[in-house]
Amino acid sequence: MEDLQKWIKSYPDFPSKGILFRDISPLLAEPKGLRLLKEKFVEAIKPHAPDYIAGIDARGFLFCTLVAEHLELGALMIRKPGKLPGELIEKNYELEYGTNSLSIQKKDLNDKSVVIVDDLLATGGSMKCSKELLESLGAKVVGGAVVIELKSLNGSSKIDIPITSLISYAD
Amino acid sequence: MEDLQKWIKSYPDFPSKGILFRDISPLLAEPKGLRLLKEKFVEAIKPHAPDYIAGIDARGFLFCTLVAEHLELGALMIRKPGKLPGELIEKNYELEYGTNSLSIQKKDLNDKSVVIVDDLLATGGSMKCSKELLESLGAKVVGGAVVIELKSLNGSSKIDIPITSLISYAD
Repeated sequence: MEDLQKWIKSYPDFPSKGILFRDISPLLAEPKGLRLLKEKFVEAIKPHAPDYIAGIDARGFLFCTLVAEHLELGALMIRKPGKLPGELIEKNYELEYGTNSLSIQKKDLNDKSVVIVDDLLATGGSMKCSKELLESLGAKVVGGAVVIELKSLNGSSKIDIPITSLISYAD
Repeated sequence: MEDLQKWIKSYPDFPSKGILFRDISPLLAEPKGLRLLKEKFVEAIKPHAPDYIAGIDARGFLFCTLVAEHLELGALMIRKPGKLPGELIEKNYELEYGTNSLSIQKKDLNDKSVVIVDDLLATGGSMKCSKELLESLGAKVVGGAVVIELKSLNGSSKIDIPITSLISYAD
């Protein structure tokens, strides 16, 4: 945990006042950090034996192909509105103020198992929404994995799958 | 080329009328496709011997970490407005109607060489803008690599670096 954490930089009041932003940029830019990050994701995800790794737009994309390719799996994109062509399923989720929405292309995922990856688990809204989108296509979502979890927001308690966080902050 | 192309799906009139959208989703979702995609990216990029792989928000993120980790390099994010914390450099680029903008975190990239990756090269606006952002930090941009190039839009002619496209369409 500590090995990865030393490459995270914190920015007070971003993107808005009162938010302490945890930035993964230095971790990605450091070859040893990126290699270790992949190894830890793979270690967490491999036991779930998934068929697909789904990444949440946009920073989840940094990890879904990385892990999927290593494990010889396919990668799925869960995207913000207006980005995916074809027949979609869309779903709203609540933010502190207002709502956001995510979408996924229709695809037969019956009998397929999926692990969802993202950079950050905060309130858990986008992870929960992604899980429900995948389930509506027949998938069994067997786990989630994030680089950073903000424990004080209790995001993982809202999602009934095991979630691995490589780094966690108490607040 | 053909090996990868068979996993690309085309959608007429997306995101707007008259545009033929080339979708990489089936390629990413196919383990053999994703593996082959990585191998071809690595083959194209390794001879440039870069220090970093920069990915353009959002679909470039699918490839920058994948290639960087394989080559034991760092990955850099070039992002849409409002997404990156810290001191930034921002730059506008022109679209057919209006302008877009991209940003990068300030970082000393003197004597560092970078390859830029993205899913698509169309008019080349975002690739050219990304190159200029990296150069403003002192980097030498030694190449670009994309999954798909739309040749009829002449994007690569606007950018004075070698650009490898894994798949190209005449129109």
